[in-house]
Amino acid sequence: MSTLESGVILLLSCADRAGLVSRISHFIYKRGGNILDLDEHVDPVEKNFFVRVLWSAEKLSMPVSELEDAFLPLAKEFGALWKIRLTGRKTKTAIFVSRYDHCLLEILWRNSIGEFAVDIALIISNHPDLAPLAAQYGIPFHVFPLNRDNKEMVELQEIDLLQQNSIDTLVLARYMQVLSPQFVERYQNRIINIHHSFLPAFVGSSPYRQAYERGVKIIGATSHYVTEELDEGPIIEQDIMRVSHKDTLDDLVRKGRDLERLVLAKALRLHSEHRILVNGKKTVVFD
Amino acid sequence: MSTLESGVILLLSCADRAGLVSRISHFIYKRGGNILDLDEHVDPVEKNFFVRVLWSAEKLSMPVSELEDAFLPLAKEFGALWKIRLTGRKTKTAIFVSRYDHCLLEILWRNSIGEFAVDIALIISNHPDLAPLAAQYGIPFHVFPLNRDNKEMVELQEIDLLQQNSIDTLVLARYMQVLSPQFVERYQNRIINIHHSFLPAFVGSSPYRQAYERGVKIIGATSHYVTEELDEGPIIEQDIMRVSHKDTLDDLVRKGRDLERLVLAKALRLHSEHRILVNGKKTVVFD
Amino acid sequence: MSTLESGVILLLSCADRAGLVSRISHFIYKRGGNILDLDEHVDPVEKNFFVRVLWSAEKLSMPVSELEDAFLPLAKEFGALWKIRLTGRKTKTAIFVSRYDHCLLEILWRNSIGEFAVDIALIISNHPDLAPLAAQYGIPFHVFPLNRDNKEMVELQEIDLLQQNSIDTLVLARYMQVLSPQFVERYQNRIINIHHSFLPAFVGSSPYRQAYERGVKIIGATSHYVTEELDEGPIIEQDIMRVSHKDTLDDLVRKGRDLERLVLAKALRLHSEHRILVNGKKTVVFD
Amino acid sequence: MSTLESGVILLLSCADRAGLVSRISHFIYKRGGNILDLDEHVDPVEKNFFVRVLWSAEKLSMPVSELEDAFLPLAKEFGALWKIRLTGRKTKTAIFVSRYDHCLLEILWRNSIGEFAVDIALIISNHPDLAPLAAQYGIPFHVFPLNRDNKEMVELQEIDLLQQNSIDTLVLARYMQVLSPQFVERYQNRIINIHHSFLPAFVGSSPYRQAYERGVKIIGATSHYVTEELDEGPIIEQDIMRVSHKDTLDDLVRKGRDLERLVLAKALRLHSEHRILVNGKKTVVFD
Repeated sequence: MSTLESGVILLLSCADRAGLVSRISHFIYKRGGNILDLDEHVDPVEKNFFVRVLWSAEKLSMPVSELEDAFLPLAKEFGALWKIRLTGRKTKTAIFVSRYDHCLLEILWRNSIGEFAVDIALIISNHPDLAPLAAQYGIPFHVFPLNRDNKEMVELQEIDLLQQNSIDTLVLARYMQVLSPQFVERYQNRIINIHHSFLPAFVGSSPYRQAYERGVKIIGATSHYVTEELDEGPIIEQDIMRVSHKDTLDDLVRKGRDLERLVLAKALRLHSEHRILVNGKKTVVFD
Repeated sequence: MSTLESGVILLLSCADRAGLVSRISHFIYKRGGNILDLDEHVDPVEKNFFVRVLWSAEKLSMPVSELEDAFLPLAKEFGALWKIRLTGRKTKTAIFVSRYDHCLLEILWRNSIGEFAVDIALIISNHPDLAPLAAQYGIPFHVFPLNRDNKEMVELQEIDLLQQNSIDTLVLARYMQVLSPQFVERYQNRIINIHHSFLPAFVGSSPYRQAYERGVKIIGATSHYVTEELDEGPIIEQDIMRVSHKDTLDDLVRKGRDLERLVLAKALRLHSEHRILVNGKKTVVFD
Repeated sequence: MSTLESGVILLLSCADRAGLVSRISHFIYKRGGNILDLDEHVDPVEKNFFVRVLWSAEKLSMPVSELEDAFLPLAKEFGALWKIRLTGRKTKTAIFVSRYDHCLLEILWRNSIGEFAVDIALIISNHPDLAPLAAQYGIPFHVFPLNRDNKEMVELQEIDLLQQNSIDTLVLARYMQVLSPQFVERYQNRIINIHHSFLPAFVGSSPYRQAYERGVKIIGATSHYVTEELDEGPIIEQDIMRVSHKDTLDDLVRKGRDLERLVLAKALRLHSEHRILVNGKKTVVFD
Repeated sequence: MSTLESGVILLLSCADRAGLVSRISHFIYKRGGNILDLDEHVDPVEKNFFVRVLWSAEKLSMPVSELEDAFLPLAKEFGALWKIRLTGRKTKTAIFVSRYDHCLLEILWRNSIGEFAVDIALIISNHPDLAPLAAQYGIPFHVFPLNRDNKEMVELQEIDLLQQNSIDTLVLARYMQVLSPQFVERYQNRIINIHHSFLPAFVGSSPYRQAYERGVKIIGATSHYVTEELDEGPIIEQDIMRVSHKDTLDDLVRKGRDLERLVLAKALRLHSEHRILVNGKKTVVFD
């Protein structure tokens, strides 16, 4: 699963039919590519086809920039959703935060040691609290204070900023605001959220309190793509931790912090390595 | 956590106050007991006190049968819920099943090699299917066919049978029927159920189908004491297993079977070793 | 991961080179196959190629029995180790046991409900203890008592029995004897063992005692293919369980039993679904 | 498990005998203490007694500073190893690092949000690399470059520094040097190390490489008290993570980093909350 300097990734989904792998692998072979990792899945119920291919481009017989053009006819024939990416190209990413630092620090630190293939171009917050942390990692930090009346206007300013910076992916790192449907639609399957429960248990606010009061023996965290419906988007990754009667609500929050940052970080890594395809309300994750 | 032939267990809960451990441990010491394992917990919110003490009765200065009488005044003073049990004494248990064999086999086999401190006196089912399995382990198997009209009458017959056999604890090993509130009340905190989801996610029927359709990355199972409200009883134990987009609904059912039998078996072991106290809608589990 | 009545599986490894996926998928496509699941891996250090392909044979343009012949030239060209199997065809399997019943019961039960694609043709033991369990599941049980002097002769008798029954795969379900190198060589990568530790920790005898004395906080179990060197074969699957200072040696044995049977069962399932390729001293497991 | 501002903790071990809990709890009760959490364990093999008691000191009838003096006669009678600590009092701690930042950052960040009851007084390193990270958290950073000849002298300087700062506990946060027996003896059961394998597997150097070459399916990390024998000290905490054939050596290192920092952090938290007693070559951890 290591990243490769000179690799090419194709991520594609379409209605299933015979011959897809043959056609795709032939396309790669003809252009001098050597497939290093191929993961294919057919949804047996929906009859949808999903594939991720990583190939070495060392002996590529054409400029990489022309690969997309060359693949276009095939993709059209398949009626596919698809993208081709170089492994070396980093995804332009913006992080949204409020006041909690743990998820932000986790992402900034991991990125600083090269764990992600992302370029964190900027951080947006409704509070100034985390500006010093952003500064430590040299990332521009933009504060947009929110009140009852300015949400729509602020979102337009934020979108403007995101567009100016050619942002591809948004990470909500415990951002305590709900984005408008208009905003969400613009970045469909490109906004990654972390919810601090084992969805679909404990939807909404105060999931740790809900978990504490229900007396569960395991808590969880869930990273998902944001959709219009709160906490209903396609799940990317989940993880859990044991708790017991000895754990207070504060203990659940503490243990949950570890879950949140690990699960969100994993989701971002999977996304940045182009390992996730959306299948209706679910995901296909080629891990 | 091994069982001890000649040990005594006290399981007790009451409102917290200073001196409880001192009084209880003094009581034991005075009677020649040597405490081998003591676990105490105070709920910091509700201010309730919970304790489990295991002591060696080798040098017990009085017949074990008199211990309860001797302890009664203290228990009254504390306003406690409590019981004293010998580690060697097996809990009389009945298992309720329908057609799935995996939980029943798990319990019968574990009991046959001495993992539980239970005496499985009988098995009750609304179907005859598992009679041969019961016969292999030499356990009486009673069939009470259920239809739309006879539930009330059947429950009376079942209760009669349970009482004749001095049954203390009931295990619903994937028993696909809902017990009446009257039945449940009679065996409060003594009916152990296994629900095939990570409660409170996927309450009710077809939890694997619900999980499959939601696209979760982890499935679970939950063992709990049965209360009047379906799937709302105090949780004893939960566990989980990873699933992926490759898993079909059948795979979830298959993986879930392993969870169900392990979680139910663990809950029964904890219960039979007198390690569980109920704290409102939750449990205190001294594992 | 469900089994398919009319599917075909190709499992293949060879030295890596460009075009392998293209050639293989083209071969399948030309014969009317529709690939349902393809998992490919290239070892980046050894430059070896591994693939498992599952395709639907519903519209197969030729008898399945001719597929192997048709594929042979390609396989020769690649210098590949390979096999083609129908998903419906069960692997002929023999189980070796001594006195512990837990692994045997687990396998027999799982097989009885269709979890494995295996045909358990017979059970071999050096003790008569588990004959009744074998009888419950209707499996022939052969006892070969072992003493200091007869091991060589007994192995010859066992091999004779295995050959008469066209046994493909052997499962050592806590079989407490070491097979001779001659025996092992005959069934290379087809003898599955369960070792009751987290290999390479606690090689050899009494791993639970070793774990107890070392004071580890986690115990494990390991399933691996048997090679000449004891406990050194390619690892198929491992799993672990938490232990604490409260756990006695007996508790470790009890907890370990659950690990052993789950890990061995998973290894057998992976093997029976043709998901495992050996890569030197390691395995590639397409799970 | 939350910390309490005004709590008192007794951690004690001695040879077992009847009456210990009674005597200790009576001592606490007499002084107005209300026990909030008591965990007691008797090693059934070695017949050693271990206890951790947390009691509320709100109504304490004497200055806390006199508790130790008051308890001394009892401790002497029991021949006990023991300590009494206020929950509010932070343990003076020094961290030793080399060049890896992940464990250091984890500890500094967790401490900054109050997860540990430690006062990180200083950081010692044989390299200057992590000075900026120490500066971000305002912790004095001391560099002691090591070469073939100066180890003995450097250790004396380090001990001098530790003593000047009244350091109680040392954390080796991936410190790539072996401490001398003289050094270790001085801080017996007070030096916490993190080893990047699942001990006792892969002792010594390059455990990830060893794990990669062996083809294990699970990697681990182990935190233990340092003793004279390398990687042989009493184990405090272990955890594991799944790996597969897809994982390169770099992936193992990356996944292992998460294990290392979580396991070391947990060990430090347990130690700082006085939850660990050493039992020969093992630990008793009252979690």
